[in-house]
Amino acid sequence: MSREERVTASTPHLNELAATDIVRGIAAGTFTCEAVVHACVTRIADQDGIIRAWTNFDPAAALAEARVLDRAAMRGPLHGLPIGVKDVIDTFDMPTEMGSPIYRGHRPPADGACVALVRAAGAVILGKTATCEFAGVTAAPTTNPHDETRTPGGSSSGSAAAVADCMVPIAFGTQTGGSVLRPASYCGVIGYKPTYNAFNRFGVKPAAEGLDTIGLIARTLDDVALVRAVLLGAKPAPLDRVPIAPRIGLTRTHMWANAQPETVDAVEDAARRLDDAGAQIVETALPDEFSGLTHAREIINDYERAMGMAYEWHHHRERISERLRKIIERGLGIAHADYVAAVRLAEHCRTALDAVFAAADVLLAPCVRGEAPEGLHHTGDPAFQALWTLLHTPTVTLPTAIGPHGLPVGIQLVGPRHEDARLLALSQWIWDKLGIRRPWRRTRRSGDHGVR
Amino acid sequence: MSREERVTASTPHLNELAATDIVRGIAAGTFTCEAVVHACVTRIADQDGIIRAWTNFDPAAALAEARVLDRAAMRGPLHGLPIGVKDVIDTFDMPTEMGSPIYRGHRPPADGACVALVRAAGAVILGKTATCEFAGVTAAPTTNPHDETRTPGGSSSGSAAAVADCMVPIAFGTQTGGSVLRPASYCGVIGYKPTYNAFNRFGVKPAAEGLDTIGLIARTLDDVALVRAVLLGAKPAPLDRVPIAPRIGLTRTHMWANAQPETVDAVEDAARRLDDAGAQIVETALPDEFSGLTHAREIINDYERAMGMAYEWHHHRERISERLRKIIERGLGIAHADYVAAVRLAEHCRTALDAVFAAADVLLAPCVRGEAPEGLHHTGDPAFQALWTLLHTPTVTLPTAIGPHGLPVGIQLVGPRHEDARLLALSQWIWDKLGIRRPWRRTRRSGDHGVR
Repeated sequence: MSREERVTASTPHLNELAATDIVRGIAAGTFTCEAVVHACVTRIADQDGIIRAWTNFDPAAALAEARVLDRAAMRGPLHGLPIGVKDVIDTFDMPTEMGSPIYRGHRPPADGACVALVRAAGAVILGKTATCEFAGVTAAPTTNPHDETRTPGGSSSGSAAAVADCMVPIAFGTQTGGSVLRPASYCGVIGYKPTYNAFNRFGVKPAAEGLDTIGLIARTLDDVALVRAVLLGAKPAPLDRVPIAPRIGLTRTHMWANAQPETVDAVEDAARRLDDAGAQIVETALPDEFSGLTHAREIINDYERAMGMAYEWHHHRERISERLRKIIERGLGIAHADYVAAVRLAEHCRTALDAVFAAADVLLAPCVRGEAPEGLHHTGDPAFQALWTLLHTPTVTLPTAIGPHGLPVGIQLVGPRHEDARLLALSQWIWDKLGIRRPWRRTRRSGDHGVR
Repeated sequence: MSREERVTASTPHLNELAATDIVRGIAAGTFTCEAVVHACVTRIADQDGIIRAWTNFDPAAALAEARVLDRAAMRGPLHGLPIGVKDVIDTFDMPTEMGSPIYRGHRPPADGACVALVRAAGAVILGKTATCEFAGVTAAPTTNPHDETRTPGGSSSGSAAAVADCMVPIAFGTQTGGSVLRPASYCGVIGYKPTYNAFNRFGVKPAAEGLDTIGLIARTLDDVALVRAVLLGAKPAPLDRVPIAPRIGLTRTHMWANAQPETVDAVEDAARRLDDAGAQIVETALPDEFSGLTHAREIINDYERAMGMAYEWHHHRERISERLRKIIERGLGIAHADYVAAVRLAEHCRTALDAVFAAADVLLAPCVRGEAPEGLHHTGDPAFQALWTLLHTPTVTLPTAIGPHGLPVGIQLVGPRHEDARLLALSQWIWDKLGIRRPWRRTRRSGDHGVR
């Protein structure tokens, strides 16, 4: 086939492919990077008027970069892969505006480490995705791809919506409360938050440094594993196989009463079906003191946010949203001793969690209160995700349930700190048993869980 | 007194005053901020041709800012205080060059959080101080104020030299290995590294995120406490009094054999004199596994450095020094599993250290191998400081000894994580007993430990 034939023959659905299939297809010469980017760009042109997932997006530049990659030697394991980058992460060749008028048009001098690492491995940065103001609570204009009257969640709103709508196979998010897993759940895709400090944060505007974690939003776990390996400087490898059915800790948490019926169903139905599939379901109660973590996370979040935004607070206060101003004011009012007490509780619970994992390989927990709420102003409650952000554990959400309005509801899987590879393998085992349930309204359905 | 009289009357030695005395004097109208800055600027003009502590320094701008402050209402507890800022920390109105040609002339869009916080409290940023390349090992041109043929230590070279030479009363440093305490010890001043993540790192170029800690270099502990309070968003308060003589853990560490005679003397003499002063000296052996921390810190440092510098590595490799290139190459060769093992050992030892502190209020440890080595190319061995950086504990160095060449040798005091205020109070108690020993070659002597 000539290059042109290849491009033409496979253009229609390339944007729906998984990342692993894209890099495999490009490496094999089945299609070009340009064709993939063209498919993504076309999808964005068709849909983004409604979804508004992208803040900085230059189709001509992305296509030009794709053509360069098509002519170049293989750069690495992500050669030709389009990636979306949450707009709180620096890019040397695109503005980084952080969802704030303060940084309108801001051009950083360097790529964030995660961006530089995937580019060096051959990825194309397709563009910057919409974020809540400074990865906080004030919403981006993004809509949920499954229902444009509902929030996609935040703060990685654009990344989740873009991946769910097959505008891009994978995207970076950041999580300080629940900003990767919540939008992934609301949009019906996979969200992965690694162990704290696993992915290097150079070039990411901090929200709260003791919590901030770069994560990935994707449509398959293989894709997560692929990009994760690159970010760790490791050689990509297939997910480990799980040789025996795992022990799954059913962990409702102290917030269970806040779960809406669809989340109760999602978690309990998953437990039932996994039990049927041979897993050992262990009712797992977290120690009592863990109930203090919700408040502790808010203290840490508000205090660190207030300190970290000192420049913007003193120079550009009038261009900070009212909601963020209130958080900063709250943070400025927190006594240092109360902040330290919150940090100490978190450190204590991280150690205490080791004992919980002695009885379970993975925890099955609620991910969200329920379906994406109506309206675009609020991006939803982070509490179910934020518990684990503070505990620094790796977490995954899988879109295994559908709520009363036909919208996706994710479950949350939690592993011990530093055991991310095992958590991903166990998540795949669980997903194989549960199957995907998501309303592929705009995209084609696949038999189980996307293209494998 | 007219304003002019005040300026003239007190100009000569204002650069030698402690920060606490400067803010008190300005608040009382004893002298002006302009007079203080003028004294500092004059000192720099006299000395910096040899010492080379400053990279970006604009006397006219500093004086102009001082005059603004003299006319303004009191901004906060640091009103009129000149501060030096290590040039890996962003300033919106001065270049931030990080000791690297890659960032020559780079102008960040915002102040780092620590800079914004002290400015909001009324401080004047006097200028940027010389740093090793990216806060690493490749030396700045700075010389030791006590002997220009010797290193001032690194990587906060300029901050330590400037404070020691009374060019500025206090300065920011950062420590990833030993980059605050070592130069402080070599230059005969106080170095303070707080508990990890105590001072917000927004706007600091990361060296290795799991280790990087902003610290302070000063000439009195009261000054450290003053600026620390502002950085924590707290109200400045005098150091706590220590009501009874403390239990001091004499902690030689597994590296004791590497200590030169002057460090052995500094530590053992301090222990003897503190014993005489009524302290209970407890021989404290760290658990065996702590000897693995030196290697673990190198693994973490090299691995995180390699990931964090991905952009510079892939875009500007030829402008990275050979020594840093080697570190990055080493980091790129570290298996992720080995990195995780190093992180796990550190986490384990942090918890194990709690038991050590059950028997001692503060640890007395070697700070450096010995006096500042000859030559400007190498900034000295970080191992004695780096142990505690990895353990995330607060540390203080005090200049209590003089080596065979008449150069300062510091001791190191270590407290439990989050108990920084207590460590500072205990450090003052210890310093009161030991007295200062430093070669005030260029600066006046004071009776005990600087102006109180």
